[in-house]
Amino acid sequence: MFFIVGIGLGDPKDITVKGLEIIKRCVRVYLEAYTSILSCGQESLEDFYERKLILADREMIEQHSDEIFAGAETSDVAVLVVGDPFGATTHTDLMLRAKEKGIPCQVVHNASIMNAVACCGLQLYSFGETVSIPYWTESWRPDSFFEKILKNRQMGLHTLCLLDIRVREPTLESLTRRKREYEPPRFMSTAEASQQLMEIIRKQPGEITEETLVVGLARVGHDTQKIVVCTLKEMSEEDLGSPLHSLVIPARELHPLEIEYLQQFSKKKL
Amino acid sequence: MFFIVGIGLGDPKDITVKGLEIIKRCVRVYLEAYTSILSCGQESLEDFYERKLILADREMIEQHSDEIFAGAETSDVAVLVVGDPFGATTHTDLMLRAKEKGIPCQVVHNASIMNAVACCGLQLYSFGETVSIPYWTESWRPDSFFEKILKNRQMGLHTLCLLDIRVREPTLESLTRRKREYEPPRFMSTAEASQQLMEIIRKQPGEITEETLVVGLARVGHDTQKIVVCTLKEMSEEDLGSPLHSLVIPARELHPLEIEYLQQFSKKKL
Repeated sequence: MFFIVGIGLGDPKDITVKGLEIIKRCVRVYLEAYTSILSCGQESLEDFYERKLILADREMIEQHSDEIFAGAETSDVAVLVVGDPFGATTHTDLMLRAKEKGIPCQVVHNASIMNAVACCGLQLYSFGETVSIPYWTESWRPDSFFEKILKNRQMGLHTLCLLDIRVREPTLESLTRRKREYEPPRFMSTAEASQQLMEIIRKQPGEITEETLVVGLARVGHDTQKIVVCTLKEMSEEDLGSPLHSLVIPARELHPLEIEYLQQFSKKKL
Repeated sequence: MFFIVGIGLGDPKDITVKGLEIIKRCVRVYLEAYTSILSCGQESLEDFYERKLILADREMIEQHSDEIFAGAETSDVAVLVVGDPFGATTHTDLMLRAKEKGIPCQVVHNASIMNAVACCGLQLYSFGETVSIPYWTESWRPDSFFEKILKNRQMGLHTLCLLDIRVREPTLESLTRRKREYEPPRFMSTAEASQQLMEIIRKQPGEITEETLVVGLARVGHDTQKIVVCTLKEMSEEDLGSPLHSLVIPARELHPLEIEYLQQFSKKKL
């Protein structure tokens, strides 16, 4: 059997009892570590699970899945993913490839930022399409996510913005060499995301301004979780500490209960 | 400390290790049992947690929260909810009331249908606003959710339809009596939801027709999970078995990977 097990928001104890039992009985357990960040570190997971994990980077998951599937027809193999197994397209693809090979599959669900974001008090069913904000470079500054934020707002919906994660990205120079070298990992902060949004609204003034209320979330589900509610301009200067961060652009009209809940994270009266 | 602990999709082993530790050390543990259904039954939870649970119905949660909070300033009390703690407005409200009383609160996240729905292969970030489909009566046939489905579709987004649950609803006749009597519990099926949708489209023909592709999900995350992909008309005659059911109206344009994944749940070539 091939298992994809969601390990939740990042603390070792966020694993479900069902998931932990599977981890303990598998012959090999891979840890997928490029679509999210493991804030607690691989070692603390290994200590808690009482077993070794094999780190699986993008290359292994996308190009060497045969290695992962080896023997899974007759014995149990698992891939652990931060959040829920269906949070990233990559994992859906992995399931399909296992099924093509006739390997039985099972999924163990868990919390992900896609539902845990509601901890800020914004109601989950009022979220529209989720967007990703990528790191800009000198020559590559995509802003199509901004249109989606505007559309959600026009429909009275909140937007969850997932912020870019760059882990094990080969350096440009090493792409032509035999030995790959990797850039240091980068995790976009709510401040960086807000700065990019500010650059966009300078060129496209309108619905969203420097004074628009935004919600920054850091380390959701952890003891050090931090939520800040302030204007976009203020968020561009606010430090929410270590990753992962997410940013929410709320709808213009909020439910009274949403305002009451958000208030506890804001310095000003909402 | 006051805890709200998500118990996930319904199997006793869906609890996280963190959640289980909290349940074991609390002086009182309530089980909220009216915003969702506990498919496994209270007893099997009590057996697995090795402790008694106090059933909390709507009246207790909404009107007698003081009883729940009693002593939580100095000892640990938990409310267990199916799915994630922030899945229903009721729980957010409960947190606010605890905080007003100066009781420290902690949340333990878990999977909910709001993220686990992606197990059908439709990408989670392409879902728009979530809607609820209520049971119609002779005189009360709201259809405002249909507008939202249409709006999501216009924007190229999927719609998750949560289907009505009626648990511990007082009978009309007993409302005037001292002793309340309750209607038998009802859980809307994908067939019933599709029949109501068919009635709406007969009056409002257009974007959505009898031939529109829909996705029915039953008992997500359980061993008996069932997913069916077919037309709305076919779904209105399809029996997916025991509750809970959810219905998804996908966007008109699907990603190739979404089609490939959905195919395994469809009798016809998509």
